[in-house]
Amino acid sequence: MYTKRNYNFWMTFNWSRRPFIIGLLYALPIAALNHFTEIDFSLPWQPISVLGISVAFYLGFKNNSSYDRTWEARKIWGGIVNGSRTFGAAVNSFIQTGDKSEDLKIRQRLIYRHIAWLTALRYQLRLSRDWEHHEDRVKGLYSPIVCEVYFNDIDREVSNLISDEEFQGYKPKANIATQMMATQARELQALHDLGYFDNFRHMEFHRLIAEFYADQGRSERIKNFPFPRQYASVALWNTFVFTALLPWGLLSIFSEDTDAWHIWLTVPFSGLITWVFFLMEKIGDYSENPFEGAYNDVPITSISRAIEIDLREMLGETDVPKPIAAVDGFLM
Amino acid sequence: MYTKRNYNFWMTFNWSRRPFIIGLLYALPIAALNHFTEIDFSLPWQPISVLGISVAFYLGFKNNSSYDRTWEARKIWGGIVNGSRTFGAAVNSFIQTGDKSEDLKIRQRLIYRHIAWLTALRYQLRLSRDWEHHEDRVKGLYSPIVCEVYFNDIDREVSNLISDEEFQGYKPKANIATQMMATQARELQALHDLGYFDNFRHMEFHRLIAEFYADQGRSERIKNFPFPRQYASVALWNTFVFTALLPWGLLSIFSEDTDAWHIWLTVPFSGLITWVFFLMEKIGDYSENPFEGAYNDVPITSISRAIEIDLREMLGETDVPKPIAAVDGFLM
Amino acid sequence: MYTKRNYNFWMTFNWSRRPFIIGLLYALPIAALNHFTEIDFSLPWQPISVLGISVAFYLGFKNNSSYDRTWEARKIWGGIVNGSRTFGAAVNSFIQTGDKSEDLKIRQRLIYRHIAWLTALRYQLRLSRDWEHHEDRVKGLYSPIVCEVYFNDIDREVSNLISDEEFQGYKPKANIATQMMATQARELQALHDLGYFDNFRHMEFHRLIAEFYADQGRSERIKNFPFPRQYASVALWNTFVFTALLPWGLLSIFSEDTDAWHIWLTVPFSGLITWVFFLMEKIGDYSENPFEGAYNDVPITSISRAIEIDLREMLGETDVPKPIAAVDGFLM
Amino acid sequence: MYTKRNYNFWMTFNWSRRPFIIGLLYALPIAALNHFTEIDFSLPWQPISVLGISVAFYLGFKNNSSYDRTWEARKIWGGIVNGSRTFGAAVNSFIQTGDKSEDLKIRQRLIYRHIAWLTALRYQLRLSRDWEHHEDRVKGLYSPIVCEVYFNDIDREVSNLISDEEFQGYKPKANIATQMMATQARELQALHDLGYFDNFRHMEFHRLIAEFYADQGRSERIKNFPFPRQYASVALWNTFVFTALLPWGLLSIFSEDTDAWHIWLTVPFSGLITWVFFLMEKIGDYSENPFEGAYNDVPITSISRAIEIDLREMLGETDVPKPIAAVDGFLM
Amino acid sequence: MYTKRNYNFWMTFNWSRRPFIIGLLYALPIAALNHFTEIDFSLPWQPISVLGISVAFYLGFKNNSSYDRTWEARKIWGGIVNGSRTFGAAVNSFIQTGDKSEDLKIRQRLIYRHIAWLTALRYQLRLSRDWEHHEDRVKGLYSPIVCEVYFNDIDREVSNLISDEEFQGYKPKANIATQMMATQARELQALHDLGYFDNFRHMEFHRLIAEFYADQGRSERIKNFPFPRQYASVALWNTFVFTALLPWGLLSIFSEDTDAWHIWLTVPFSGLITWVFFLMEKIGDYSENPFEGAYNDVPITSISRAIEIDLREMLGETDVPKPIAAVDGFLM
Repeated sequence: MYTKRNYNFWMTFNWSRRPFIIGLLYALPIAALNHFTEIDFSLPWQPISVLGISVAFYLGFKNNSSYDRTWEARKIWGGIVNGSRTFGAAVNSFIQTGDKSEDLKIRQRLIYRHIAWLTALRYQLRLSRDWEHHEDRVKGLYSPIVCEVYFNDIDREVSNLISDEEFQGYKPKANIATQMMATQARELQALHDLGYFDNFRHMEFHRLIAEFYADQGRSERIKNFPFPRQYASVALWNTFVFTALLPWGLLSIFSEDTDAWHIWLTVPFSGLITWVFFLMEKIGDYSENPFEGAYNDVPITSISRAIEIDLREMLGETDVPKPIAAVDGFLM
Repeated sequence: MYTKRNYNFWMTFNWSRRPFIIGLLYALPIAALNHFTEIDFSLPWQPISVLGISVAFYLGFKNNSSYDRTWEARKIWGGIVNGSRTFGAAVNSFIQTGDKSEDLKIRQRLIYRHIAWLTALRYQLRLSRDWEHHEDRVKGLYSPIVCEVYFNDIDREVSNLISDEEFQGYKPKANIATQMMATQARELQALHDLGYFDNFRHMEFHRLIAEFYADQGRSERIKNFPFPRQYASVALWNTFVFTALLPWGLLSIFSEDTDAWHIWLTVPFSGLITWVFFLMEKIGDYSENPFEGAYNDVPITSISRAIEIDLREMLGETDVPKPIAAVDGFLM
Repeated sequence: MYTKRNYNFWMTFNWSRRPFIIGLLYALPIAALNHFTEIDFSLPWQPISVLGISVAFYLGFKNNSSYDRTWEARKIWGGIVNGSRTFGAAVNSFIQTGDKSEDLKIRQRLIYRHIAWLTALRYQLRLSRDWEHHEDRVKGLYSPIVCEVYFNDIDREVSNLISDEEFQGYKPKANIATQMMATQARELQALHDLGYFDNFRHMEFHRLIAEFYADQGRSERIKNFPFPRQYASVALWNTFVFTALLPWGLLSIFSEDTDAWHIWLTVPFSGLITWVFFLMEKIGDYSENPFEGAYNDVPITSISRAIEIDLREMLGETDVPKPIAAVDGFLM
Repeated sequence: MYTKRNYNFWMTFNWSRRPFIIGLLYALPIAALNHFTEIDFSLPWQPISVLGISVAFYLGFKNNSSYDRTWEARKIWGGIVNGSRTFGAAVNSFIQTGDKSEDLKIRQRLIYRHIAWLTALRYQLRLSRDWEHHEDRVKGLYSPIVCEVYFNDIDREVSNLISDEEFQGYKPKANIATQMMATQARELQALHDLGYFDNFRHMEFHRLIAEFYADQGRSERIKNFPFPRQYASVALWNTFVFTALLPWGLLSIFSEDTDAWHIWLTVPFSGLITWVFFLMEKIGDYSENPFEGAYNDVPITSISRAIEIDLREMLGETDVPKPIAAVDGFLM
Repeated sequence: MYTKRNYNFWMTFNWSRRPFIIGLLYALPIAALNHFTEIDFSLPWQPISVLGISVAFYLGFKNNSSYDRTWEARKIWGGIVNGSRTFGAAVNSFIQTGDKSEDLKIRQRLIYRHIAWLTALRYQLRLSRDWEHHEDRVKGLYSPIVCEVYFNDIDREVSNLISDEEFQGYKPKANIATQMMATQARELQALHDLGYFDNFRHMEFHRLIAEFYADQGRSERIKNFPFPRQYASVALWNTFVFTALLPWGLLSIFSEDTDAWHIWLTVPFSGLITWVFFLMEKIGDYSENPFEGAYNDVPITSISRAIEIDLREMLGETDVPKPIAAVDGFLM
């Protein structure tokens, strides 16, 4: 997530200059041919204009849907924040063993496993998928595939939170976060059986676990079900068709002018309009996958850290980690 | 569901080439008549352009609604994932007979029936409906009608999960999945009556059953209530009217040009614009029915399998089935 | 609800041919006057085109809202399906008198009253309202007003479900369905007082009743609060203004052509564009009221029947009614 | 709320004729100047057309948002209906003192206070706000400000429902409805303390109170937070700018015609397009505030009455008030 | 929030005059060059018009999203109102120590801490963020950064509500509001342990705390996650590209006219269209951040005050603070 007011023009342009350049290079021979030969290659502008407006609608629909995906992803992680705080407050008030230091130990264990779950979920969500923009992954932050590096990264982060034995038990499982939460559920039942809280409170804990599963599952839904590729592809190929016809249509307009050199204006104009359309196409494309480990991601690392700080402070800890800061205006 | 970044151009084109070809064939005699006779058949472009923009709006509305249907279907199955995990965690913590092996047997029975319910639901959802695209069904995956093959398919998949006797009891019922869940409810009451869990926990189980019924019913709503055919038909006939007028309008534009051969450009241009409009029309049309057993389906087989793996791993099983893999980029 | 893939062209056209014909008849004298007199009646096309695009937007907004009404109506009835199944499962597991045949009798009584409630609600929803399309009501299915026929129809359908005495008690009430559900609530309290289920289970029943009231109220909201008539009227009059100007504008375009007879093309062209715009106007208009007893209704008769079948099968009945079948492709 | 199928044309036109007339009066001297002087005042049409389409989009966005406000308001009051019925059913089944006549007295007291709350809320919601259309308030129905008349109106309506002493206690409070509901909560606790219902049932009552507070608060949100004035103002001023440029642009089109008198067509045409645009602007504007006491209001008086009838009939009363009828097609 | 019916034209214009002036200044030399040199600098209008319409779509999408952010913010704070009233009613009915004056003291303590939480949340939400419009902050109302002034402001407001000791404990915490609510949770558990209310009621309190955490977290989500800057930047740069091409395109139109002086009309026309487009761009931009301490903010100070009044009146206090009044039509 970018945290400054606007991407400046050159940043925007640099990121998206390919279609501009290709637009120029494509229009150049067309203009040249028209200028140096006698043959009229031009196409009438009117139908191309209807095409352009239709494509702009379609891109609007796509941008809307992509934005909804990003915004929903942020909502889900907002939900995780809220559930985690409620869980923290519940753990700190509901659990009573009669022995303050035992209370603290149990509370810590539950809250630390919760932070471990956040960590595992975060890593799982940033594994790479076929339809994502691998070329834009922030280097070194997350492993793109399940491998030894991946497990080491998670292990390093959770080693202070759960026992190594517990972690090793999760490694062969298909979905680590799911099994962590199941452990949490079993432990809560065990604590209840020990009489540390009653049925009413246990059921509230159970509903929080249901909520965490729901938020995890919602994140995974956005991760695993891309903006349907048929819709995305039509956006791409429609933009492509429109911009492919563009310079031929511009020719007919510029050739109406009396100044013969005006024909060359086809080239920059083509580049510019091609750029604007592909910019609108790309901006949606690059916001479709809010967990791909790239710069426009929903900042789940930073959100997880904020949750960790709040929960540790509820436990009375003072030596809490610092919030994640933006680097060059990007917050991950 | 397609899992690669984009359908490539030829894949897209091949899938939708019919309107392109028909567009060509329709425009050809029109251009020829105009060229070889003296009569001016052309229609003015301006009103056709207003028509085109209006039709593009309407298609935008249709695409939006179709997308919402697909996305809602995915959300519902995401909800089934979340509910199933919570159910798994609850079954594994709440049920306590005092005898570990008895615990496991009961837990298994409940979870296996849950997987059987998923299977039955999945098969029911992929029976065919009048308004679906039967020509695009993936061959052999699902039976299109209720018949012996259909029952055999389900039987084969659930034979390890529920007793044959139980399965035979479901066969005459109108809705197998509904009755399976009702059995689940009766069994939970019986287990409660045996004292294996108390009222609080029973009520949580009951609410999960209500949730599963809700998600089943939501899937069936999308299955059984198509995008209203009056809206779909207007999209189709409007696109048809626009593209039928198209070559006559293009004639008037190309005949303004001095080069007489330009008139023939009407033909490819007609084909192209017809193609773009019908592409936008079809893309929505083919995403309306997310459970029709075709390539753009929400991948419910794969989702069900993922649930099965998670639930079996919660039971401590290690010999779990593999996740469903995409075939040629398609995940079912 | 129409259940085939598309309304065919002539079906669509027939249903909406009035604006086409009026468009023709209106344009004819205009073209004739222009042709046979020397006076130029034409209006410039450009502003009319801006008007047309603006009206197309507005119709898009209206179609969207109408569709949302239909879809919400279907969602609500989907909710009734889900709640009813949960109710069925609850009734069949929760109620225990200790005597199996007594159990069955009570369960039957509750479930039959539930089906009676569905029936009453269904009839109430299909009474006619001032703003509905009375000319399109399916003949003989439902009485349009509260009268003896209306009560007889309901009585016939519920006579096997509740006692005649109970039914007579409802007749003077303003809202039969509401009072039926209130009876259900009182009976559940009485059954609880007899010790047939405990507080936990009673509260679940109570929440289901709250849900049924909510779904009933939501249906009534859509029934009783039309798409605001000010918005609907503006759509109508805007389309009217646009199509009234249309032939005058087309005149100016066709009179540019050298072929004098082209002026007559104004007539079919006017008819066609008028038809397309009114088609978009009407399609929303005829989907606004999903319970008006007409062909595009949400199929609440068929949904109610499906619920009845599921609930009776849960009771173990085998002599259940058949599902409602579509007639000529229409499902009510 | 208007209850007929459509506002007829003249009703619509009369209501919105101001912009038409001003459009005429504004265009007249412009056309005259152009006709009688030699100076060409015309502006080119093309950029004005882009402006027109852009403004039409913006109005579409505004109409959409206004409609959402009205529809949400209706949903909220639908929610109040549903909650009230559930409350009625709960009051009539849950409360058991052992003495039938005492039961009835208590049930009546609770339900009557509920109707009093509806009345107070209704009056509060129809106090006037700075941004509302005061000129359109239905005369005499509701007092626009808090004053003696206002309190007398409420007092008259609630005098049969709660004791005068109780009503006097509410008068100095900032929000009468809020305090009424708080009294309801205190009374329910007192009834519980007397043993008339147990904890389970008390908690259901408490959740209903939470729901009523939520629906009250949602109504107040729509009442107190207008469609943001910055968005509304931009719609207004954009429409204004477009229509101010309109006749100058039309001049350039009509002056192309050979018939000199055509220049005068600028005048009616200007009026007409100005009218269509301001009609679209006004229709949203007049649906923004669904509780302003004007003709397009959500009919909360009628809804409240329907609730009152249902609740009284649940109590077994037969002497219930009549439903509110529409007056001249308007239901309040 | 602005509370009058419309921003008047000059207010609107003044606020947004920069693009108008820059539009003028930018077009002036272009028109001059064209007039005084022989070179034709003009660009054809048609493609610029397609660009304009596409940009207008994109701005529509952006305005829609910004509006949704503001409206959601208002909904969240409406939720806080509703939850707070329910909390007030619950505190006043549920807590019973047996000693009326002790009851009052405890109720007061809980409600006052709730108001303190509202205050802290309000201050936190109005700290400034990188992407906000700092130039528009209302002076002196809120401190833009965490500093001594900030703590003093909060301290001053909460000093009558919670003990100084309690407040000092919150100061080192990352999120004061979160920890206040955690204290509330702990105190409620302690009160329950003293027997002042039972489990049922405690759980209702717990759910209210979960709700308050949810509403706090939702506010923070809108505060901390801006409208994605990539979307915002594309809106800005697209508008910029369109308006940069604008005067060159207008030149070609005005130079068609026979009156040579018409070329100068390019200048005001450019200014005007530039202004309309940037007005639509800015209006969304300035409604994106509903908690930035500027004039279009959701009025959280006023809402908090209204809650405070309602809650104090529930406690029976008569010496309650006045509602916040609008200043110059602005309510904060």
